[in-house]
Amino acid sequence: MATDAQQACFEAGIKFGSLYHQFAGTPVSTSSTRSLEAAMAEAIENQPFCEAVDVTVHDDRVADAVDHENGYTELTGSLMDVEMRIEYAGVTVRTRMEMEDGYPLMKLVDVVDGGESSESADPNA
Amino acid sequence: MATDAQQACFEAGIKFGSLYHQFAGTPVSTSSTRSLEAAMAEAIENQPFCEAVDVTVHDDRVADAVDHENGYTELTGSLMDVEMRIEYAGVTVRTRMEMEDGYPLMKLVDVVDGGESSESADPNA
Amino acid sequence: MATDAQQACFEAGIKFGSLYHQFAGTPVSTSSTRSLEAAMAEAIENQPFCEAVDVTVHDDRVADAVDHENGYTELTGSLMDVEMRIEYAGVTVRTRMEMEDGYPLMKLVDVVDGGESSESADPNA
Amino acid sequence: MATDAQQACFEAGIKFGSLYHQFAGTPVSTSSTRSLEAAMAEAIENQPFCEAVDVTVHDDRVADAVDHENGYTELTGSLMDVEMRIEYAGVTVRTRMEMEDGYPLMKLVDVVDGGESSESADPNA
Repeated sequence: MATDAQQACFEAGIKFGSLYHQFAGTPVSTSSTRSLEAAMAEAIENQPFCEAVDVTVHDDRVADAVDHENGYTELTGSLMDVEMRIEYAGVTVRTRMEMEDGYPLMKLVDVVDGGESSESADPNA
Repeated sequence: MATDAQQACFEAGIKFGSLYHQFAGTPVSTSSTRSLEAAMAEAIENQPFCEAVDVTVHDDRVADAVDHENGYTELTGSLMDVEMRIEYAGVTVRTRMEMEDGYPLMKLVDVVDGGESSESADPNA
Repeated sequence: MATDAQQACFEAGIKFGSLYHQFAGTPVSTSSTRSLEAAMAEAIENQPFCEAVDVTVHDDRVADAVDHENGYTELTGSLMDVEMRIEYAGVTVRTRMEMEDGYPLMKLVDVVDGGESSESADPNA
Repeated sequence: MATDAQQACFEAGIKFGSLYHQFAGTPVSTSSTRSLEAAMAEAIENQPFCEAVDVTVHDDRVADAVDHENGYTELTGSLMDVEMRIEYAGVTVRTRMEMEDGYPLMKLVDVVDGGESSESADPNA
């Protein structure tokens, strides 16, 4: 059996893949960023163990990406930051997607099992 | 060459297919219907020649579709009605998606060229 | 009522929007272009009135777009050409998506009603 | 910091969410199941750390789901089984999606770190 912390990380990954591939390609302009952020967050928060989703679609990046006369672009990872908190069997997982070396990267930020973070755990403390 | 009215109908179809296949499968519950409606409408209104999109995700149908313990379902055509208005070169096209015989159908409601509707046109009137 | 030719153009547009927004964002590399082309074509050919779909995902464009170490990119309109033939009530519509001025454009190529093309129609013939 | 096993499980989840939300909603009939299976598997195998994806879209379930005259349905989790193998920093994660109580469930099957499975770990050995 996987541990609760492993299961929590698996659940966290599902949410990230879901969010990205459900909404990538959505037509977006600076006038529709707010509604898209809200819909993405609320949609994924419906999924099990997903306590909080925060999506920022950057208006300035959207404006830069609108490079043709039609006035819109398609949502990609380079236009947004995403943060999520997953709770599974007492384990809290925090994740983040952000640009790194020009490529959007989904990252595990922190795994906290029953109040003890695997990030800060120090057996010698 | 296609006529302006044919081109307008082609554009109307693109918007419908886009809306449906971009958002079908989105996790939805009765607590996220409003944000999803807004995001769908604003996203597709970004597309060229698309003047107005109105989406209704029916709370009662969503509630009926939530048949497992997780409390959400996935968006399908049977949960929503959509109306759109496309304007292309003086032609106005109105379209609607609604349930017909238990199957969501995308329909051309009206094609009006320069103020003359192909629906109501009557040379003998 | 819309004419059969207008209805055929509406159906053609639906197929294009569907294809694009269903598959945009799919991870693609030069080793998966053929299976993606086949799946896109066969999926959309399932839709009503859709007689033929031909998708070309260009290996050279995919290779150029793979600009990070992971070895893949996401499908966008700039990586592919698409041709479709729709048949509705005796009307044949041909459509094409191809790059124009650096932007993928979905176009009505030809609308033929009962053997008479609206492209070649000549009132002086 | 997350452990390698936790990171491997996160990566496994990303692949599952990606596969599901990229392809859910795709028009499918019994004549297009094979090409869809191949495209889904090859697309997701492009993603980092994803060593093997096996997708089975069940022809009999597709046939049962085709309940209207158009002869196709839309892909959902209830029509398919998926198995994946992820390799990350010496950790092998096996995952599976299958129907359970009428609902498609994504599951961690096995997490093996450096040849030692967390499934078979026996403190008494």
